[in-house]
Amino acid sequence: MKNRSYICLVVAFMLAGTCRFASGQPPRGQLVISPQVNPDKTVTFRYMAPSAKDVKLSAQFEKGPVAMAKGDNGMWSITVGPVKPDIYPYNFIVDGIQVMDPGNVAFFPNERFKASLVDIPGETPLIHSMQDVPHGTITYTGYTSKTMNGIYRPLVVYTPPGYEKNPQKKYPVLYLISGTTDTEETWYKVGRANLILDNLIAQGKAVPMIIVMPYGNNFIEISGPASPDVVPMYQTYSNELINDIIPFCEKNFRITADREHRAVAGFSRGGGQSLWAGLSNTDKFAYICSFSAYLTKEAFEQHFTSFYSNPEVTNKNMKLFWLSIGNEDFLYKQAAEFIDLLKTKNITTRTLITTGGHTWMNCKLFLSEAAPLLFK
Amino acid sequence: MKNRSYICLVVAFMLAGTCRFASGQPPRGQLVISPQVNPDKTVTFRYMAPSAKDVKLSAQFEKGPVAMAKGDNGMWSITVGPVKPDIYPYNFIVDGIQVMDPGNVAFFPNERFKASLVDIPGETPLIHSMQDVPHGTITYTGYTSKTMNGIYRPLVVYTPPGYEKNPQKKYPVLYLISGTTDTEETWYKVGRANLILDNLIAQGKAVPMIIVMPYGNNFIEISGPASPDVVPMYQTYSNELINDIIPFCEKNFRITADREHRAVAGFSRGGGQSLWAGLSNTDKFAYICSFSAYLTKEAFEQHFTSFYSNPEVTNKNMKLFWLSIGNEDFLYKQAAEFIDLLKTKNITTRTLITTGGHTWMNCKLFLSEAAPLLFK
Repeated sequence: MKNRSYICLVVAFMLAGTCRFASGQPPRGQLVISPQVNPDKTVTFRYMAPSAKDVKLSAQFEKGPVAMAKGDNGMWSITVGPVKPDIYPYNFIVDGIQVMDPGNVAFFPNERFKASLVDIPGETPLIHSMQDVPHGTITYTGYTSKTMNGIYRPLVVYTPPGYEKNPQKKYPVLYLISGTTDTEETWYKVGRANLILDNLIAQGKAVPMIIVMPYGNNFIEISGPASPDVVPMYQTYSNELINDIIPFCEKNFRITADREHRAVAGFSRGGGQSLWAGLSNTDKFAYICSFSAYLTKEAFEQHFTSFYSNPEVTNKNMKLFWLSIGNEDFLYKQAAEFIDLLKTKNITTRTLITTGGHTWMNCKLFLSEAAPLLFK
Repeated sequence: MKNRSYICLVVAFMLAGTCRFASGQPPRGQLVISPQVNPDKTVTFRYMAPSAKDVKLSAQFEKGPVAMAKGDNGMWSITVGPVKPDIYPYNFIVDGIQVMDPGNVAFFPNERFKASLVDIPGETPLIHSMQDVPHGTITYTGYTSKTMNGIYRPLVVYTPPGYEKNPQKKYPVLYLISGTTDTEETWYKVGRANLILDNLIAQGKAVPMIIVMPYGNNFIEISGPASPDVVPMYQTYSNELINDIIPFCEKNFRITADREHRAVAGFSRGGGQSLWAGLSNTDKFAYICSFSAYLTKEAFEQHFTSFYSNPEVTNKNMKLFWLSIGNEDFLYKQAAEFIDLLKTKNITTRTLITTGGHTWMNCKLFLSEAAPLLFK
């Protein structure tokens, strides 16, 4: 009797954890282990769906969806790789429906799609990995945006190791913007900006800095980064950065508030926003970084005459003008043309062309390579 | 020609945002609006799945899954309610597969299931709503757990409004633990502990306090809260709280480090962990709160003799011993029996029995009612 009441309670307790959201879950005691990164860098993915007819793995390290095999117990699985160590988005396609990995808490914050993350460690720790070094802290906060008609806008802020222990010390600041459909969390949870800086600082490669990760969407629909309607979006975001985000951050964090200690960088749409905000405000930013983005020749020549008309002054004035992109990125051609355009105008740039596409794998690499050049 | 290149770029730019994770997404320009909370408190949910045969809404304000209707354009939708203002978990069941709402960034952090969140505002702002009051900040940090063999364990910490501006001031602290399969983020992103405290503090109902939200899973599988194997789990978690979490927090945050300024509370498994840690360490906690949890008569009488053997001393010593649960909670009977047990032992408690079940709707209510009683 007592045992039976235990059993009822056990079942109830099980269900409590999963409420009405238990799809794809096996009975307690047979929890799905997915993803499972194996010692040889192969990865095993599992998804419990006894009634599903077709389950595929969709992962950014694969060219396309890969069929998974169904086991007798209704557990679908596949082992892929070896996979190059990195962090990759993935999900499952279950009878045509894309789903996150139910038991994996590592997710990709995004406004459009739902993806899980798999982290394949390197033989030697990768720059974005959690290592035994001093860690900075991440603060979730927000500000009321005058530019956006008084709405509350979220911010994620990285303060470096030692920030709390040195209450008098001020730090340089990097404003780091994410891409289309990303959120203010994406540079933290997918880009690992905090761990990359923890490790670079511990290795003496980067100076301790504050990183401000704003929400990049100001709800002005654009057709694409080369479309004529991109300018008002860039301009509005530049206004929000200058008039809302920077004043809030300089009021609430110990930031050295001058152009020599202020950088702006971003990925994809955020790269375009960084280019626009930086080039529009060279009196406020000595460092501008574009990751996987560009400006059109027309927009650059029309709006930034003063920037390129006297390259000697500009090159002396800018401490860093960084542009990087993967040679498989769908924006590669346009980004390369922009780099060439700057060359023809004798503007000094630091450029990095990598393999790979418009991905957060490249994005982490770009931050890892550009951050050591900041504030030196 | 130029137009055509624009179009290609538009398409590429679209795809970039969704990578390979575009399932359920309509063409750009027809973005799915879901959930849509209507003025009359009805809610419209939409899911784009032209090829799906059956789509249901699974929401915690419904008794069970509700069929959605397919529109000509492949958009499934349903309007439900009016729904009682609150925040509810929900997802879609698409041909038997549970999925989050693709375009909704509000999600339920959990180790087991994937759910989105819908926030139905009240006519007058609810206690967990974002209001125009001073806001505290949320810090994501972590500690190395000696109890857990040196692994890094995450923590989410709320510091109240004014914390940064009063660098000399110390604050009382509430250690707030989430439930089975929840993560360190759940009390923040689902329980809205930060906004509840912001509002209670602004209304003068709660004193400014620090809230530490640890990760409650220490990987000791238990059959259920009444099973004999629960004791080692509770004991291990109590050790981690006392020997790892509290020392880390008192070193890194401005906490008044005495029992009169230290409280422990939790939901479900976290409620059991709070009861165990609190009752095992009455020299360290003057405030103990259990939300939707209990201890068995056997465990209580065996392990906490000194607590109940001299009720006069205990009642004088404990500033608050809070127990609350919903009368539809699957643990209601056991929790009510535990409350009665404490009565028979003449232990003074504050209890709150509500309607509703083992949900985060009740959980937010319990925190809103208990927090004003802390540190007074």
